[in-house]
Amino acid sequence: MKPDGLLITPGPDLIYFTGLRPPVTERLTMLVMPAKVLVVPALEHPGELPGFEVVPWRDGEDPYALVVSRLQENGHYAISDSAWAMHLIALQQAADIRVSSMTDAMPMLRAVKSADEVNLLAEAGAAADKTYEQILSVRFQGRTEKQVAADLARLLREHGHEQVDFTIVAAGPNGAHPHHDISDRVISDGDMVVMDFGGLRNGYGSDTTRTVHVGQPTPYEQEVFDVVRAAQQAAFEAVRPGVACQEIDRVARAVIEDAGFGEFFLHRTGHGIGLTTHEPPYLVEGEEQPLVPGMCFSIEPGIYLPGRFGVRIEDIVTVTETGGRRLNTTDHGLAIVN
Amino acid sequence: MKPDGLLITPGPDLIYFTGLRPPVTERLTMLVMPAKVLVVPALEHPGELPGFEVVPWRDGEDPYALVVSRLQENGHYAISDSAWAMHLIALQQAADIRVSSMTDAMPMLRAVKSADEVNLLAEAGAAADKTYEQILSVRFQGRTEKQVAADLARLLREHGHEQVDFTIVAAGPNGAHPHHDISDRVISDGDMVVMDFGGLRNGYGSDTTRTVHVGQPTPYEQEVFDVVRAAQQAAFEAVRPGVACQEIDRVARAVIEDAGFGEFFLHRTGHGIGLTTHEPPYLVEGEEQPLVPGMCFSIEPGIYLPGRFGVRIEDIVTVTETGGRRLNTTDHGLAIVN
Repeated sequence: MKPDGLLITPGPDLIYFTGLRPPVTERLTMLVMPAKVLVVPALEHPGELPGFEVVPWRDGEDPYALVVSRLQENGHYAISDSAWAMHLIALQQAADIRVSSMTDAMPMLRAVKSADEVNLLAEAGAAADKTYEQILSVRFQGRTEKQVAADLARLLREHGHEQVDFTIVAAGPNGAHPHHDISDRVISDGDMVVMDFGGLRNGYGSDTTRTVHVGQPTPYEQEVFDVVRAAQQAAFEAVRPGVACQEIDRVARAVIEDAGFGEFFLHRTGHGIGLTTHEPPYLVEGEEQPLVPGMCFSIEPGIYLPGRFGVRIEDIVTVTETGGRRLNTTDHGLAIVN
Repeated sequence: MKPDGLLITPGPDLIYFTGLRPPVTERLTMLVMPAKVLVVPALEHPGELPGFEVVPWRDGEDPYALVVSRLQENGHYAISDSAWAMHLIALQQAADIRVSSMTDAMPMLRAVKSADEVNLLAEAGAAADKTYEQILSVRFQGRTEKQVAADLARLLREHGHEQVDFTIVAAGPNGAHPHHDISDRVISDGDMVVMDFGGLRNGYGSDTTRTVHVGQPTPYEQEVFDVVRAAQQAAFEAVRPGVACQEIDRVARAVIEDAGFGEFFLHRTGHGIGLTTHEPPYLVEGEEQPLVPGMCFSIEPGIYLPGRFGVRIEDIVTVTETGGRRLNTTDHGLAIVN
């Protein structure tokens, strides 16, 4: 059911409506829609904001009353996912409203990208691809995960990223942890190395993963790798308008389960990307939202073998009228690094 | 009224109880107290956590049910201020509980620091002080705010900060905006320059402000500066156990009002500091919480003259048995820079 209005706090929703990027703090900044009223701390007054009424408040004043005065009694409002609980609770105490999360009530708010947005995501993807191509020629063996991660961050910035969000480098057994924190582990000959990196370029996200190998892989390592590669390919080929999000997850999972590795695929197949690197739509069991042209999301199946190694392959994909289009186009083969 | 339990999400509250610093994402991580149960995404499993039960969940499972099963029916819970609204709403829908924000229900949870914590804050303050002393010898005139801000960030890191949270450099009329975004404005002879900088060192915060002048100030500039300096001093001298937070604000404000600049002091006098650079207690009108030995907070009055310049002086202060002790000890005089 469509809500009566939106309660938008600093983050991607506020950027989407106003372009503003104020700090996220204990001081309430909130855009009320459809009233188009921006309640903002006086000391962060953005100046003129065409099309919006700016209502500043000073320390010691009650900012919640300023929001509540613009709400409909008994109204239903969708609030930004990452709005602070402190702010939501104060609003719930001050007004008789019903509140849903943005992802629940308005999952499509930012999910379908315009052609301009897809172009920006493609450019961010191309920058991540150049980063990958160049990282292949750095030294891995004898250097730490942190050092290679620093190389990735430097390359992302060189290729135009203004923000680096993550540079996972997970070597050998560390690769079995999908969200491994980079460590001082020295990378050795024979290590499988998962690299998952991305951030924001011109305000839009990149997020790609490639798994490489130091020296020649064993036949078993190659077998596991090939299963992940086939799962990624199958999921990509399943993308077309009208297919449910969960179906893409099921396709990837079926390939991995059929190969006997089902229990080692620890996470959903993907997540949306845009003004952030994680947002709706989520490619996960239970998500029945059908794909729509313009949606952009990751497809990133993986296999994680505890104590041994991990493999993940991730591209950003956008939905077209006829299928899917990859925004990461570097080779999926198991690259051998030094 | 003391709540029946706590709902703690990634951020300073979780660090305080467990030391863990997982990412803040759409996937629920929540520590339930007093049950000592940590519900966590399987792919961010922290491993053994002595004293706590770790309950992992996988994508596609319902993490909220795992939390709710540990809650008391009709219980009253305090939730971390910055918990995502999305998570709070899901819990409210799944359980019959009453929820308050941590700052409302447990304002003293982290407000009174141990001796070890005060030492860490003092070390962070000393590092910020060294940064200030060294910035005085860089060139201001002819360089941009951004360039001087980059110097501040570099110095903070050189003096042991692992995280730089803000480096405000606000020259001339920009100083009239307390939260000015650093710009490409070139700093000129005759500019008053507000510098407000800090971050985390060994996990604890620094936050200090000094206002300097390029070349000799006018008598009027010196007069405004002296009012702020007197206000900061008076507020500091008012610190002692048992005094209400709002009283410190009133003391600083009275000095500025008596000098005729009341309308140009745009913000509260201070905020707590610890595992974050903004937390309770807040020194603001309406905050009746009495000061307690071990509390640590900023005292940072300012005067902001639109279109002209601003002045702010800020030290971190800790409450002792007999009064206040500054954790920033650099000189309060108006330093002349080149």
